[in-house]
Amino acid sequence: MHAITIPEPGGPEALVWDEVPDPVPGEGEVLIEVAASAVNRADLLQRQGFYDPPPGASPYPGLECSGRIAEIGPGVAGWNVGDEVCALLSGGGYAEKVVAPAGQLLPVPSGLDVNRAAALPEVACTVWSNVFMISHLRPGETFLVHGGSSGIGTMAIQLAKAVGARVAVTAGTKKKLEQCAALGADILVDYREQDFVEEVRRATDGKGADVVLDNMGAKYLDRNVRVLAVNGRLAIIGMQGGIKGELNIGALLAKRAAISATSLRARPPQEKAAIVAAVREHVWPLIDGGHVRPVVDREIPMNDAATAHRVLEESGHVGKVLLVVP
Amino acid sequence: MHAITIPEPGGPEALVWDEVPDPVPGEGEVLIEVAASAVNRADLLQRQGFYDPPPGASPYPGLECSGRIAEIGPGVAGWNVGDEVCALLSGGGYAEKVVAPAGQLLPVPSGLDVNRAAALPEVACTVWSNVFMISHLRPGETFLVHGGSSGIGTMAIQLAKAVGARVAVTAGTKKKLEQCAALGADILVDYREQDFVEEVRRATDGKGADVVLDNMGAKYLDRNVRVLAVNGRLAIIGMQGGIKGELNIGALLAKRAAISATSLRARPPQEKAAIVAAVREHVWPLIDGGHVRPVVDREIPMNDAATAHRVLEESGHVGKVLLVVP
Repeated sequence: MHAITIPEPGGPEALVWDEVPDPVPGEGEVLIEVAASAVNRADLLQRQGFYDPPPGASPYPGLECSGRIAEIGPGVAGWNVGDEVCALLSGGGYAEKVVAPAGQLLPVPSGLDVNRAAALPEVACTVWSNVFMISHLRPGETFLVHGGSSGIGTMAIQLAKAVGARVAVTAGTKKKLEQCAALGADILVDYREQDFVEEVRRATDGKGADVVLDNMGAKYLDRNVRVLAVNGRLAIIGMQGGIKGELNIGALLAKRAAISATSLRARPPQEKAAIVAAVREHVWPLIDGGHVRPVVDREIPMNDAATAHRVLEESGHVGKVLLVVP
Repeated sequence: MHAITIPEPGGPEALVWDEVPDPVPGEGEVLIEVAASAVNRADLLQRQGFYDPPPGASPYPGLECSGRIAEIGPGVAGWNVGDEVCALLSGGGYAEKVVAPAGQLLPVPSGLDVNRAAALPEVACTVWSNVFMISHLRPGETFLVHGGSSGIGTMAIQLAKAVGARVAVTAGTKKKLEQCAALGADILVDYREQDFVEEVRRATDGKGADVVLDNMGAKYLDRNVRVLAVNGRLAIIGMQGGIKGELNIGALLAKRAAISATSLRARPPQEKAAIVAAVREHVWPLIDGGHVRPVVDREIPMNDAATAHRVLEESGHVGKVLLVVP
C-alpha cells in the first residue's frame, strides 16, 4: 500500500507518499481500506519531530480515518467486511490501509458521504470527553470555546447548542466569527480586537463561562481562570500558547473552579473505547438526525498532504481539512 | 450571651470575650446552645482582618460547633428542642449561642461526647466534598494528604483508609508522623528532610498519587502536579504557601490530570446542605461504627480563645483544638 511517511522531520515537504508494507489486523482489530483521513495539529508536531507516536502505534501520521472494513481480526464481534466506518486511530490514517481496534470504530452516519465521516472521530471524541464527560456542561450554562472555527470549535459549538447551552467563541477574523454564528454561536469575540474576559462577562451579567474549552495553554491560563463563573470548569486540550503559565490559585479557589488537561492520543485502548461508545450513544443520533454536521474546509488528495499541512499552518481554514486517498 | 468579638484586627489578643445580643433563628434555622466550637485556620485570618465573614454571616468567628437545640425557627422539620447536634456554620461558633440553617446540622454520633462532636463538621465536610465528591477517590488508589496531623489530615487519613485507599502523608516531625501511622497512614514523609514526590513515587513503583489533598497552594503546586499519577486529581483547599504559582500544563496534560480548588465557607446554603447530607449518609455510619473518630489535641475554655489561636499558629498540635463554653 501507499502511506505518508516522514523520512526526516521537517516542514510540510517532509511528508513523502511512499510504498510501505500493508498492516495486519491483530486480536480485536480490523483492517480498514481508507477513503479519507483528516489533519490534526498533532500531525504537524509529529512531522516536525516533536510528537512521537506512542509505543505500538503506526509510524505514519493520521489520528482518524473513514473507509470500509477490508478484514476482521480474531475476537471482533459486531462488525463485518464491507461495513462503512470511521475510526479513532493512534496513528497511520494517512495511508491506503490502516488497522484499528474494534472499540474505536463508529459507523458512517446515515446520509453522510464516507469521505466526510473522516472529519468526525477526533473532534467528536475530544469535545464529548472534555466538555461533557469531564466538565459536565449542562443545559442553560454558558460555554466558551477558543478557536471557534477550528475542527474542534465547529463541533463544540454544535454539540453545546444541541444540549441547550449558550455558546461563546473566540476567533481571529470577522469571516470566521460569522461562520461560528451560522453554527449557532451566541457570543462572538474577535480576539485580535477584543478581550474575551470582558466580552463574556458583559454578555453574562458578570457571571462568566461555566465551561471553557481551551487549546492555548499557558498564554490564556490566567484569562481563562478570570473568565470562569463560580463552579466553572476549564478543560485544556492544547498548548498552542505555551506549556508553563502562572496559575492564580486564589482566584480558582474563590470560584470553586477546576482545571483539567487531557489528550486523546495517549489514552489506553479501553479509555478510548469508552469515549467512542459514549460518542456513539450521545453524538451519533444528533448527526443522524441532522442537528450536528461535520464542517469540512476542503478535501485534498492524500499524496499532497504537504498542502494540507500548509493550510493548517496558515490558519485560514474553517472546520476540518480532509485527505482523500487518490 | 457571651461571644468572642474582634473589636480591632490583630494578634491573638484581639479576641475579646464580650457580652453581645442573642441571635434569633430565622426561617429554616435553629438556635443552638453551644457546648463547644473548634479552631480553623480561616479564624486566624479573620482575626487578622484578612477574611471577612460572607454577607449575612455572624460577625463572630467560628465555623463549626456542637451543642443542644434551644429553639426551632419556622419551617424546620426533623429536629427538636433538646437534640444534641453539631453544625457547619458560616460564622459565630465562638459564642454561647448561634443560629444555623437546619440543612447544616448533624446529630452527635452515638457514644461521642457532645464537646468532641465540635471537632467534626468542618473536617468531615471538607474531606468528603473534596476527596470523594470532587476527586472520587476509589478503593485501591493512592491518596496523599499534606499536613497529615492537622484536623483535616487526621480525618482524611481515616476516611481514605475506610474506603480502602492507600494513604501517604506529609508532616514536619517524627511524632506527628507516628500519630498519622497510628491512624492508618501507610507512607510517611517528613517534609523537612524528604522530597514527597520522590518518596511517594518510590512507594508506588513510580506511579504516584491518584488523589492529593493540598493546603499549601503555590508553594507545592509544581511538586503536587509532579507527584500525580496518570488520571490524578489535585484538590486544593488552602494557600498557606502562597496564592500564585507556576503551573506546568504540559505535565498536567501528559497525565490527563485535574486540579480543583474550593472553600466550604463561601458556598451557598444549598451546596452546604448537599455536602452535609452526603456526610451524614457516608461518614456518620463510619463514626457511629467506631471506624473513624475525631482527633482532638486539647480543649481550651472559649473565653481564652487567644491561647487556642496561639496553639494553631505554633503548629505543634495534632488534630483539632476545641473551644469549650465556660
